[in-house]
Amino acid sequence: MNVAIIGLGLIGGSMARSLKAHQLAESIIGVDQSETHRQRALELGLVDAVDTLENVIREVEVIVLATPVDGIGRLLPDVLDRVDRQVIFDVGSTKSEIVKACANHPKRGRFVACHPMAGTEFSGPDAAVLNLFEGKYCVICDAEKSDRDALECVEKIFTGIGMHLLHQDAEVHDMHAAYVSHVSHVSSIALALTVLNKEKSEEEIFRLASGGFRSTVRLAKSNPKTWVPIFRQNRAPLLDVLDEHITVLSSFRTALIKGDFGAIDQMMTKANKIKSILK
Amino acid sequence: MNVAIIGLGLIGGSMARSLKAHQLAESIIGVDQSETHRQRALELGLVDAVDTLENVIREVEVIVLATPVDGIGRLLPDVLDRVDRQVIFDVGSTKSEIVKACANHPKRGRFVACHPMAGTEFSGPDAAVLNLFEGKYCVICDAEKSDRDALECVEKIFTGIGMHLLHQDAEVHDMHAAYVSHVSHVSSIALALTVLNKEKSEEEIFRLASGGFRSTVRLAKSNPKTWVPIFRQNRAPLLDVLDEHITVLSSFRTALIKGDFGAIDQMMTKANKIKSILK
Repeated sequence: MNVAIIGLGLIGGSMARSLKAHQLAESIIGVDQSETHRQRALELGLVDAVDTLENVIREVEVIVLATPVDGIGRLLPDVLDRVDRQVIFDVGSTKSEIVKACANHPKRGRFVACHPMAGTEFSGPDAAVLNLFEGKYCVICDAEKSDRDALECVEKIFTGIGMHLLHQDAEVHDMHAAYVSHVSHVSSIALALTVLNKEKSEEEIFRLASGGFRSTVRLAKSNPKTWVPIFRQNRAPLLDVLDEHITVLSSFRTALIKGDFGAIDQMMTKANKIKSILK
Repeated sequence: MNVAIIGLGLIGGSMARSLKAHQLAESIIGVDQSETHRQRALELGLVDAVDTLENVIREVEVIVLATPVDGIGRLLPDVLDRVDRQVIFDVGSTKSEIVKACANHPKRGRFVACHPMAGTEFSGPDAAVLNLFEGKYCVICDAEKSDRDALECVEKIFTGIGMHLLHQDAEVHDMHAAYVSHVSHVSSIALALTVLNKEKSEEEIFRLASGGFRSTVRLAKSNPKTWVPIFRQNRAPLLDVLDEHITVLSSFRTALIKGDFGAIDQMMTKANKIKSILK
């Protein structure tokens, strides 16, 4: 099977490594707007060749859309226009806008909307790692809109690289993603800005990072090119959970002002419940 | 040298392991209010014996106060009343209230106020790990109030277990600790509560945790018995930085409502600066 990967960053590059390691692709052709990324993907052996999107569509059986989510929505109708029996799937962190972008396309069935739930704070081809997806969950959205053979092909790929499969409605997926993953990114970004605004000594930040700041702020290192489009596409459910987050922080602040440490103890004891969910 | 460790949790227990591994203590006697902790500390070999606070003071040269910070402030005057030439140091995350608690004590010089900046989200004797302190920073506060021999003894212990030493005024220390470490804990606790409030499916939380939630929420697993007293003792600087944190989150929210993704990109790009500080 020949595969084209459009977008040779953390996710696209890691997908390339996984497909090769699990012998799921004979050859992988990479597409990326950035000359540097194309060159680096070749040097790292992520792909066997690089080419333009127009050219690769005719040369492969499977096309993976691994650009930022705004790019996926933009590219998808064009790619569908050009395909015949090829299978297309994406790996974006939002799903509603992407399935809307191709909802009425006559070739809709060739596309499978996917979100392999895995990542790191790093980006670009150098961030690609082999076992990024192993043991993690891949959500497939609105599977009934995909052709049976396309769906089976994609499910085989994701189980082949070691992922567990889940099926969800695109809007339900986006709500869950906002409620857990996307709000964590906003919280971490806001923490980084808070500490950079208040703590003028970079040396103090470095020294104090062993007190837990390092892990809490990890996601603030994430690439804005990836994340701003996610926030844009998932605006409504993100606003909903962000309001809750600000409300919780304000309650903590009120308890601190009042000196109501019983309330703070209760909040912390409740937060500790996360221990039983995430061992 | 015989050492007494008062409080056999994560920090006291790890200190016991470090002192033994670096041959800095001939014998370690443990003191803890909890019978379970005393028993477990013996079973784990953290301490050679357990005893009451009253008894151990006469049997050791060095006394380590490793209870929650409210306990340190309460015990310190009593311990100072009973010592002669022994050295006492603490390992609490706040310093101003603790140095105030002994400011006018005739034996003030025997006490050295310390904060070895290291920790995990776990607690109790079972959380004790050998290399917790290695390569991390230990802040010694108001060192000029300590007797020269006491200070030298404590500095030798901390450098002996592999820590870098810093000297700071207690209030300056507390401000920095609030600005970086303590606000990270509040942010993480609030994120846990937010997600628990909004996401009713524990299974979804578990599945989505690979999207960064796991690390961002890690500190929410911390023990309220340790942390509520820290928040209480460091209330003013914590409120200061918490206000900033809520302001930053509110700006993000406003930009999201307005659809001003240029502003969100700018915030994220600025937050990315943390990459150059924490590699």
